[in-house]
Amino acid sequence: MAHPKAPSDGDPRRRAVTTAVRLFRRQGFHATGVAQIVEESGSPRGSFYFYFPGGKEQLGAEAVAYAGAAIEALWERTAQDARDAGDFLRRVSSAAARWLERSGWQEGCPVAVVALEATPDAEALRAAADAALARWTGLVARRLRRDGVPARRARSLAVLFVAAFEGALLMARAGRRADALEVAGRELAELARGAARRPRTMRGRTAPG
Amino acid sequence: MAHPKAPSDGDPRRRAVTTAVRLFRRQGFHATGVAQIVEESGSPRGSFYFYFPGGKEQLGAEAVAYAGAAIEALWERTAQDARDAGDFLRRVSSAAARWLERSGWQEGCPVAVVALEATPDAEALRAAADAALARWTGLVARRLRRDGVPARRARSLAVLFVAAFEGALLMARAGRRADALEVAGRELAELARGAARRPRTMRGRTAPG
Repeated sequence: MAHPKAPSDGDPRRRAVTTAVRLFRRQGFHATGVAQIVEESGSPRGSFYFYFPGGKEQLGAEAVAYAGAAIEALWERTAQDARDAGDFLRRVSSAAARWLERSGWQEGCPVAVVALEATPDAEALRAAADAALARWTGLVARRLRRDGVPARRARSLAVLFVAAFEGALLMARAGRRADALEVAGRELAELARGAARRPRTMRGRTAPG
Repeated sequence: MAHPKAPSDGDPRRRAVTTAVRLFRRQGFHATGVAQIVEESGSPRGSFYFYFPGGKEQLGAEAVAYAGAAIEALWERTAQDARDAGDFLRRVSSAAARWLERSGWQEGCPVAVVALEATPDAEALRAAADAALARWTGLVARRLRRDGVPARRARSLAVLFVAAFEGALLMARAGRRADALEVAGRELAELARGAARRPRTMRGRTAPG
């Protein structure tokens, strides 16, 4: 994953990236034009192609990487604070539900929308979305392993959690209610606790002990 | 949910809807212009606003309803054929994985992409996506109940399944590999079987018996 540049806050390049993230969350990639990004980030239009010679697709990929890293950092702090993996999954889901509700159900995951909108020629966008999803999955798997969940099962539950989280976010947005996120968080917290108590393989065989 | 009209196959109105579904699957709502829909459906441009006085948003909402009903019909057949709810969830996930792979990882769920792209002013799109997701959730919950899963738990697992299915589809597309769908299908099949064997409430208390 290309990590975001970390220039000073007033940096116009960074402002273009954070503005793109904000706009993608609300309206996706295709509905967001370079002109809107330039205008809302307060940068001179002439500098856009100086900073992003690859144009909107380059900025889009950087915005996805930036948002992916920001979410990863947030989840990492939550993983540290949580008393177990189940508590971590429930907290992450509830926090997303509250954030979505505060936005008036207008926000979405910029990584998810770009993953679905990216056309075959937009390889940089697809790769950035894939990398962000893979890093979140790795983080969740590590937190599950800390509770004693075996590696393969931890990986499997982590994939399920990231999938359910992304799907629940879009269901919550479409339905303007937090249920899907709360339900996914609760069910997966339960599943994580079960897996930590009684490790079993992905095929459901109970491990000895 | 507004059910799709069912005119004859050669009907230009229907062709516009099915063409929109196909284009949304690949590139989403915003990247799909009326001109492209008209051209690829082979309809005279003049008739577009006759059939869809509400323009692209009206067509978009009908396309989402149409795709939602088609997927519902497919899932319903699979639910009938499956030997239990777990088998049903696994089959639905595997079938989606194979379909996505056959498309060269280019397809996506038209309901999901529209749910994420719909801006606040596109209320018809949001409502159509919400209705499709709600119908799929209801179908999955009914299949779980047939196996003896209590109503509340069936609802909870159905929400989790639809969320995981949508999220896994986008992960599979972004990663160009079927793992997420296969993993989600396997884990949720296991969970459904456990819930049918030993009904428990959403809060994890074991029910008597």
